[in-house]
Amino acid sequence: MKSFQKQTACASIGLKLSNVEAGEALFTLPFNSNFTQQHGFMHAGIITTALDTACGYAAFSLMPEDAAVLSIEFKTNLLRPAIGERFLILGKVIKPGRNINFCEATATAIDAHGAETKVATMSASIMAVYDRAISD
Amino acid sequence: MKSFQKQTACASIGLKLSNVEAGEALFTLPFNSNFTQQHGFMHAGIITTALDTACGYAAFSLMPEDAAVLSIEFKTNLLRPAIGERFLILGKVIKPGRNINFCEATATAIDAHGAETKVATMSASIMAVYDRAISD
Amino acid sequence: MKSFQKQTACASIGLKLSNVEAGEALFTLPFNSNFTQQHGFMHAGIITTALDTACGYAAFSLMPEDAAVLSIEFKTNLLRPAIGERFLILGKVIKPGRNINFCEATATAIDAHGAETKVATMSASIMAVYDRAISD
Amino acid sequence: MKSFQKQTACASIGLKLSNVEAGEALFTLPFNSNFTQQHGFMHAGIITTALDTACGYAAFSLMPEDAAVLSIEFKTNLLRPAIGERFLILGKVIKPGRNINFCEATATAIDAHGAETKVATMSASIMAVYDRAISD
Repeated sequence: MKSFQKQTACASIGLKLSNVEAGEALFTLPFNSNFTQQHGFMHAGIITTALDTACGYAAFSLMPEDAAVLSIEFKTNLLRPAIGERFLILGKVIKPGRNINFCEATATAIDAHGAETKVATMSASIMAVYDRAISD
Repeated sequence: MKSFQKQTACASIGLKLSNVEAGEALFTLPFNSNFTQQHGFMHAGIITTALDTACGYAAFSLMPEDAAVLSIEFKTNLLRPAIGERFLILGKVIKPGRNINFCEATATAIDAHGAETKVATMSASIMAVYDRAISD
Repeated sequence: MKSFQKQTACASIGLKLSNVEAGEALFTLPFNSNFTQQHGFMHAGIITTALDTACGYAAFSLMPEDAAVLSIEFKTNLLRPAIGERFLILGKVIKPGRNINFCEATATAIDAHGAETKVATMSASIMAVYDRAISD
Repeated sequence: MKSFQKQTACASIGLKLSNVEAGEALFTLPFNSNFTQQHGFMHAGIITTALDTACGYAAFSLMPEDAAVLSIEFKTNLLRPAIGERFLILGKVIKPGRNINFCEATATAIDAHGAETKVATMSASIMAVYDRAISD
């Protein structure tokens, strides 16, 4: 997907697109010791980068080709420390709209034994932008 | 500050602590083309990484030495595209507490001429953790 | 439930407890023309009153008897206009904790034909308070 | 203001418009024992009703006459128990836009001696709706 390649932030943190369906996007984020906070967990802002990206792709999957997506706002809930070998980041549109898409996303840690733990959730409002400058 | 050095995420995105006072922390984040989204703006999640860090430091500045800070949740409002030469990230405690600190932060873009534009705001709940495992 | 009777706000808006299980609480809110906004929909703040109450009860269902619950913060997403004969308000604990309970709630409108439409969602942080003044 | 009169929720909780300027709206909410939670404080959802209304009016003050305002989402932070004789509710637009207005609001309790205590804050996204069904 062309637009994903321009997202240098995603490449820099190692976020990889695994699957996109209508209204849903799944990404994988490996644990990366370059992006931790003071206790050695993945930084909440980096998990948020992944969650926001998953919401944006889920919303984009329902839009016409010429639309662009812009995050208006998101809230991240940090349920547990973000420790694990990798994280599954799943974004879903819970209410599509011509202008506003309400999305939710979850970050699930996978440990060395394959055990899964939900570590964070997001709710986000993603706007579709048509035929005008992004910066409006 | 020792704990800041362990925050590899902050070093990786180039976030620098400028000033800490009681209940307030100021950081500077240079524009970095390795951390953009699809339109070439700084990724909302990277701005969030800086805002969350500023909230955490503002809260930590009011706590005893042996306390640790954990973000419970935050909401980021993305007012305008994050374009600029650098960003000033200011975190403030708006209501301190023994357990929960309510914090707010703003990200202000500075362009090549020094003009300032507020690009994002955050409200965050930061918990103080004493004498027990962080992962509880 | 004794504490529910003291919640005069709930009685005033007509909110009724339907069911409580471990980590989950279901309420019913009838449409009430005394609590609308300017277009004749139920006011988002009244829907929020119901959602917050459902989150609080869900959290309280997992706590010891002597604990009290306090909402720290919540975010409400207004998916669609709150129109209908009545609303089902379902609160769930998604991550219990000794101090902080992360909860989610949904408001589902039921029309005259029994058709269901999700109109709002909430994510909330609910704190357990033990052995100390609530107002601390 | 005509639209305010249709807001029966506001009348029912006793919320009164005190002042509107460009991008700002001030309301007064008396303490009302019919709208408390289990500890006798004003219910967080009722305070939210007032905060959301103040955000909506602040946004509406900057729009053309034929526009309607709809709240997309809001987050309320409950800093302290909502106790007092009355509450000042101040809403402000922090970033106006053709589609989305970012607003903030505060609830300040006034006690019998006139002392002021900030009890809650809100950040809200308010959408302007033109020439089309509200329910879209």
